[in-house]
Order: sequence, then C-alpha cells, then structure tokens
Amino acid sequence: MLGGMQDWPLRIMRLLDHAEQEHGTREIVSRYAAGDVVRTDWIGIARDARRLANALERLGIERGDRIATLAMNHGRHLACWYGAIGVGGVLHTINPRLFDDQLVYIANHAEDRILFYDAAFASIVERLKPRFETIEHYVCFDDGAFEHMIAAESDAYSWVEGDEREPAMLCYTSGTTGNPKGVLYEHRSTVIHAMAEVQPNVLGVCARSVAMPIVPMFHAAAWGLPFAAPIAGCKLVCTADYAPKAICDLMHEEGVTHTAAVPTVWLGLMHYVDETGSDLGDLKAVTIGGSAAPRAMVEFFEKRGVAVAHAWGMTEMSPIGTVGARPHDWDTLDFDQQIDLICKQGRVPFGVEMRIVDDEGQVLPRDGATSGRLQVRGPWVIKQYFKEEQPAIDADGWFDTGDVAILHPDGVMQITDRSKDVIKSGGEWISSIELENAAVGCPGVAEAAAVGVHHPKWDERPLLLVVRKEGSNVTPQEIIAHLSSQVARWWLPDEIVFVESLPHTATGKLLKTALRDQYKDYKLAAA
Amino acid sequence: MLGGMQDWPLRIMRLLDHAEQEHGTREIVSRYAAGDVVRTDWIGIARDARRLANALERLGIERGDRIATLAMNHGRHLACWYGAIGVGGVLHTINPRLFDDQLVYIANHAEDRILFYDAAFASIVERLKPRFETIEHYVCFDDGAFEHMIAAESDAYSWVEGDEREPAMLCYTSGTTGNPKGVLYEHRSTVIHAMAEVQPNVLGVCARSVAMPIVPMFHAAAWGLPFAAPIAGCKLVCTADYAPKAICDLMHEEGVTHTAAVPTVWLGLMHYVDETGSDLGDLKAVTIGGSAAPRAMVEFFEKRGVAVAHAWGMTEMSPIGTVGARPHDWDTLDFDQQIDLICKQGRVPFGVEMRIVDDEGQVLPRDGATSGRLQVRGPWVIKQYFKEEQPAIDADGWFDTGDVAILHPDGVMQITDRSKDVIKSGGEWISSIELENAAVGCPGVAEAAAVGVHHPKWDERPLLLVVRKEGSNVTPQEIIAHLSSQVARWWLPDEIVFVESLPHTATGKLLKTALRDQYKDYKLAAA
Repeated sequence: MLGGMQDWPLRIMRLLDHAEQEHGTREIVSRYAAGDVVRTDWIGIARDARRLANALERLGIERGDRIATLAMNHGRHLACWYGAIGVGGVLHTINPRLFDDQLVYIANHAEDRILFYDAAFASIVERLKPRFETIEHYVCFDDGAFEHMIAAESDAYSWVEGDEREPAMLCYTSGTTGNPKGVLYEHRSTVIHAMAEVQPNVLGVCARSVAMPIVPMFHAAAWGLPFAAPIAGCKLVCTADYAPKAICDLMHEEGVTHTAAVPTVWLGLMHYVDETGSDLGDLKAVTIGGSAAPRAMVEFFEKRGVAVAHAWGMTEMSPIGTVGARPHDWDTLDFDQQIDLICKQGRVPFGVEMRIVDDEGQVLPRDGATSGRLQVRGPWVIKQYFKEEQPAIDADGWFDTGDVAILHPDGVMQITDRSKDVIKSGGEWISSIELENAAVGCPGVAEAAAVGVHHPKWDERPLLLVVRKEGSNVTPQEIIAHLSSQVARWWLPDEIVFVESLPHTATGKLLKTALRDQYKDYKLAAA
Repeated sequence: MLGGMQDWPLRIMRLLDHAEQEHGTREIVSRYAAGDVVRTDWIGIARDARRLANALERLGIERGDRIATLAMNHGRHLACWYGAIGVGGVLHTINPRLFDDQLVYIANHAEDRILFYDAAFASIVERLKPRFETIEHYVCFDDGAFEHMIAAESDAYSWVEGDEREPAMLCYTSGTTGNPKGVLYEHRSTVIHAMAEVQPNVLGVCARSVAMPIVPMFHAAAWGLPFAAPIAGCKLVCTADYAPKAICDLMHEEGVTHTAAVPTVWLGLMHYVDETGSDLGDLKAVTIGGSAAPRAMVEFFEKRGVAVAHAWGMTEMSPIGTVGARPHDWDTLDFDQQIDLICKQGRVPFGVEMRIVDDEGQVLPRDGATSGRLQVRGPWVIKQYFKEEQPAIDADGWFDTGDVAILHPDGVMQITDRSKDVIKSGGEWISSIELENAAVGCPGVAEAAAVGVHHPKWDERPLLLVVRKEGSNVTPQEIIAHLSSQVARWWLPDEIVFVESLPHTATGKLLKTALRDQYKDYKLAAA
C-alpha cells in the first residue's frame, strides 16, 4: 500500500523554479576576474539557464551527456550549471589546479561533449585541446562567446523531467594515488543535501542572508551553496578573485552575512584585516572546511562576533558530513571551552549516519576517547564511482571515509588522522596529523611530516621529517622538548630527520604516499 | 542511467534514530492533564517506542494496520507515534472534539485495530465502544495501562523497513459537508516536510531551541513539530493543559524559545499576561496558524520582541503551505509596514508550488491585486483521500485548497476567503470573511456571517446576518456606516438581518453551508 501524497520528484530544476518564482528579484552579484561587477537576480539566472538549454539542445546535447566547466564563481557559471542540468545533461566541474595528465584523464573519462571555461584558464584549454578526445565545443565565459551563444535563444524552455535518481553532476576527486575518480551526484541527492544545508544546525541561510561562497564552484559543488541559495532565497555574491582585498571590499559593498572557505583563504583575510585595520562588515557566520582551522583563526572570528562553524566533508559526501553548529548549552561554556568545541568537527545533520570501526570492522564506542576508521551512510553519500565496477561501500552500505576520528557522547566528531597516515604502534594509534601540527608550533620549524616506519617490537614507530625555517638551526632535542608538552610520551618520534622540502599533491596536501614509500625501510637507530 | 549515490529511503524512523544518536540527552518535558510534569529525552522516547513496537507485534499488528490515538500532547503519545510507525503501522490521530457520529465514522472507516487514549477522553471511549466495529484493544495513557503494556518488553527492536512511499499516518479532515475524509501521509512526505520546516524561512528550529507546540497532536500532526524536532535536536515541551497560566508557567520553567498555536490560544495568553503583568520569558518566535491572527495579536508579540510568523496550511498539506518569515528588506520597513506584512500569510517554502486560477482554471497574475482560487502542488500535498476512488487533484497535479487568495509579486500570499463562501457579484468577488471581520469591529455586533443571495441583475449580492451583543440595539444604519469606512462601496451588504445565533461546526467554524441553504432564496427588498 502506498500513501496518498503527490508524486513530485526531487529534481534540481525545481530549486531554480522556486527561486525565480518566490525570490525572483533577490540579487546575484558577480565580481569577475577582470574586476568588473555584474548584477543579475534569480529571474535573470533562470532566463539565461533556459536560453542556454535551448542552445545546448541545438548542439545536440541529450539526456545524460556530460557538459564540462573549467571556471571560478560567477553568474554565467551559475546559469551554465542550471542550463546544463535543465537540458537533462550532467554538469561536470573540472578543477583547473590539477596536473595536465589528470585534466586530460578526467575529460576523456567523463566523455565531456562541451567545455565552458574562464579566460583565466584559456592557456590550459589551448595546451590540452589536442589531447581532449570527446570535446566538440569550447565556449569561453568572459570573451563574449557565452553571451553570444545564448543571446538569440528563446526565453522559453521546459526543463527535462525524469526520475529523481538520474545523475545531474559529476565531480572527480584527486586522491594521492591512482587516477581521479568521479562522483556522480543525483537530482535527489543534491536536493536533499541542499534542504539539509539551509537549516540553522548547518548553514542557517534564509531570505535575509547574503551568502558569498569563497569556495570555487569546481570544489564539490562549492559545498552545495549554489543549490542551497535558491531554497533560502538569499542574495548570492560570487567572486573569481580571492585576493584578500577583493574579498574584504566585496563583503562590505554587498553586505555579506554568510561565507565559507578553506583556512588558506581566511589566513590571507586575517592578515589583511590586521594590517589595514579593516573590519568584517555585516558578517555573521563563517564556515571553515577543507582542512582543520587553526585555533587562532577560530578566535579571530569569534572575538569579532562572527560565529565560526567548522565543517568536515568530502566530494563523496556532496560534501557536507558534519558542521559545528552551536550546541544547546553554548551559553554555559566559557570562551576557551567554546573555542575547544569549535575546533572539533561538529555534528552530522539529519541524513548522515556516522560510526567508527576498528581494522576488523567492529563498531567502536562513542566515548570521546576511542579513535577508529570513520564510516558514513546517507542519501547524499557515494554508492559507486562513475564507471567503476565495484561499489564504493560495504555490504551494509557504509562508506569508509579514509579518516580516523573520535566520536564524543554528545555527537561531536573529531578528526584525528587519515587512516592510511595513522601510525600503528604496539596496537595503539598515533595521529600523524597531531604530531605534525605540534611540530610546526615549534619555533624554527617550517613544515613537518610524520610517517610510520617499521619497528621490530612496536610494529611501527613515528619518524618526523622536518623542513627548517630559513636561517633556523633548531635541533632535534629542541623539537622533542616542544612536543613533550603537547603529546603523550609514547607518541614522541623515535627520530627526527631534517629535509630540504616535502612533496605535495596538486592541491597542496602533503604527499604521504611518496614519503611512506621512501622511508618505509628506514632503519631507526634505537630499534 | 542512475546516479552514483546511496539508496537511503526517507523513512520516519530515521528521524528518531538521528535524535537518539546525535541529540540523545536533549529533554522531552510533558505536563500531563493532572498537572504532573514528566521528563525524559530522545533516548527515552526511542527506548519506549521500541518497547511499544515489540508489544504491538505481540498483539499481531502488521504492516499497514491502523493504530489510533485520542490524546493531547505528551511524551507517551510521542513514543506511541514512533512505536506505531516503527512497527510498520499507520498512526491514526483522532480529534476528540468531533461529534460522536463523526468519531464513529472515522474509526470504522480507518479500520483502527487499537485505540490509545487520554483519561480525559475516557467518557468518549466508553460511550462509543459499542459502535467501534474494528477496535480490538483499548489502552489508556494515564492510568498505568500504557506503562504496563511496555514495561516488560525488550528495548531491542529493528524498525520495519520499506518503500519511502508507504503510508505512516492518517488524519481526517472534517469538512462542513459530508463525511470526514482521510489524508494518508507517507514516510517520504513527512520527512521532506520536516526537513523543510526546520529552515529559518519556516520555523527555524535548531539544537539550541526549546519548542513547545500548543497545537494538539491530533491536528495535522501538531503541524509537523514532532517530526521536525528530531532533525533540529531541540528540547520539546508538551502540554495537555492549554490554560493560559499553565502555558505561561511552562514557558518560563522550561525556557521555551519557539511555540506555535491557533489565535484562540494566544488570545487567552494575551489576557493573562496583561492581567498578571507576566512576561514571555525566553520566547523568541511564535507561529500562528489555523485561522487569521488579528492585528492586535501580532502587535502584542512583536512589541515584546517575539517574532511572529503567520502560517497557512491545511491537513491536506501536512500541513505547511506558507509561512511569514522575515523578508530581506525587513529592516527597511517601519513598524506598521512590518505588521501589515505579518498579517498576510507569507511565502511558500521550497517544496510547495502555488498559483491562483479563475473559475475556468485560467492562471491569474501574481500582481498583488487579483484574487483567485488557490491551488498547490508538492511532495507533501495530498494526491488522493484514503479509500477514495477519484484523485483529489486535477490532471496537472494541482490541488484546489478551497481558499481564495491574492499572490503578491514578492511571493507573499494573502488569503481573502474560502472559495465556496466568496460572493460573486457582477463577475467580481466579494470576500465574505472581510465583510464579517469588518462587521464584528462595529460596537454592538457579537458575531456576523455574510452570505451571497440570488440577485436578478448581479447574480449574487451580500446579505449580512448579525448577532447583537447582549443589551445592544445597534441598527443596520450604524453597521453600514461602520462598514463604509472599511470596504469598497459595492461590497456593502444589500440587507442586514438580526438573528439570535449562528450555526457552527464541531471545531467552532461558522457553518456557512447551512446558512447558504437557509438563505439562498431570500428575497432582497431592493432587488
């Protein structure tokens, strides 16, 4: 027996229809790379999306075809997202920061038929065109080509309808090993994620908000904000320019209340504000994700009356996993307790199930002390990578995030390491990330990497690789002395090796795989 | 081609699982009719729901069986909701304020197998038992029977899983004509409605909120709050006692921040606060629905710093249709403009499509002036009444709400009348509700009803039936003079007839059908 309510598939285009109809004149402001500011609104975005859908249909784009973009945040890109999805296509956002071989692999693997790109990335396009095997059309957003493409098209278009489980968007994740893998978002997963995102426990955006995602639209759908904004009916501010001054000016000029970015962006803004004596305007809430926010950053915002929410997620999770919204007893905590709490990763919204397990898959307690492999389940969590034969989940539907975490009794999650980076010493786990963070707090240390090396008794013991700051002569003894006040005694590295530099991925993460390969047979002097 | 995300049906029990796991110790406080206050939490509710599910299974309850309740708001009722749905049953909330014949019709039509009831309604149960044809078991919530039923049961139970379109809840609407009709909510419709409800544009509840629905749980699922609260992770305060003092005390004692009720409840509270000099404690937001809130009521709350959201909906809409959340330009409005806006019915959340049409079904403009029949569509809007042969919607999926409304260009909706009550004069519509509201503002008028009577030239003209206040000798001329300053000249009633009383439905609404039947052939003196 089925219930008596309506068949109303959760399709992405209904988000835009809602914004156009109910919040039509709410502004979409774009600051392009060249510095020009262009204003439109949800009515304008919807109109351009319909024109583009007509243009794409004219080019023979059919249901399920992949339409790629290589672009930063702006209104044309936004209209392109909705137009591409509206015509029944699968929008494929490509990260221009990847290596050439990865870009070529991704575009060919996705079988992209069209590529829309920013002028800023034209050199990439020119260089790789000969190697892109399936792209038939190239359209630049800023040189007039995009505007020309849609100019003569009709404003009328009926969005392609279909099952809510149909794909709508494709994002590749660049792991530290192997080829990038594609995550195929659905209409349903995207809409449910967006509905979860607007609630006060997550982003808390509404019709009064002015949201500026300083997350590129090629990073896990700009954390879903281009889909959440139409539900909220908020004003949306897009910038292709991430320079601190540009961000700060835009925040003031447009009255930004909510923003989201990775710590690197905020570091730049913090320095800019400190140097210029500027303030944060109307800013009320900032979401920090991508990697852990330093404590000083959290304090910087909180002291200025801006609520910080630490977020954790991944491309495979659309991307929201947890968000550090205020708990009910917030007002009873003192400032340091509040900062402690914000520095953890927060709680899951409804729609994400979360657990930790040991290496044998046994579920571990949520006791605030035990750490284990973090696994998730939910309607916006990956089931299977694009074109992969095997599911990405286990028989019970759990996806292993590759992170190691502690779950607290109040539901708060705390990341301690990546599971492949954790150092297993005598059956206990040592967090390589905590060791590294503690080490970079030592004067004279520019960067550090902790890796596990084989030990006859303990199985693995930590080796710390350190890049000294220019001109520094910091000694192993000084570093050990510093670490001793920060971590348990048995976590202290058995040896410290000074190196000239450490290897990184294209997106700036430490390339631990290379380090592990290089040092796995390192002979510890004390072993 | 389907996307790559997980199969995770939107089932109601996942709401409770989430609250138990992530917000387990957040309190559920119940003030029972006898005055005793009982405290539990989401862990306690989930445990009792599992025990009840075991008990129901022992009684032979199977998937799809109807389990009825005749009860006010309290924790046992809440555990009963989730236990009944968790065992795969369909929870059927019965409104104890209906007439005996309606109660008997509803219980027999639903084929209820069990009835849980409050001691306060025991006399109804005793009186109607002989006429209930399918109920096998009766369980009282307050005499120890409910606690006894679950006491020895196991805490372990795996909720019945299934398709998200399966029914979960049954609510009957008592129209002014014919038998009550059943609306069969689904797992999916309920979960999506709850997700929409927590957003700041609607109720805006989160982990820090303390929510007290003063809407009985038998009224359209207490406006969905028992399903939204687990998403928010808020504290929930339930009361079976609607006396103003009880409400005011509970608000203070429990730190209530969010509440929702019909205007009648607030009228009582306003008088109590005025008389006792009490305040509203921590109250931040109040949702008013069920019928239009008088302007003085809106001002009462807003002047005390409590944000009023006027809500409109109906059982057929789960029930949220529109909510008057703050628009983006709120701070630019002066106080009177703000109150004007709140007195309208607000905007649809994402998930409700809305339009107005004329009698021929032609879509009318959203111009802030034209009024038409209000139609809706969406995942939590009815498709078909329980056991009815015909769909409740037209070929394009639109449900006619029976209301007449104006849609403003900014998306705000304004109810002007019920479509069957509107008076059609010379092709134009006169709102019977506006005439009645204007008339009761005239000194000496206790109650008024406007009905259309046949007119040879204008088709219909308004006749105003007036009940004088005790001791009043107000004249037709005085009433017309009063009305002239409030409504258009051509809206003025052709005649005013004084009556001793007016007929009402069981829930206190004017019984316009009876009046129309009685007066349809009334001979207007001037016609």
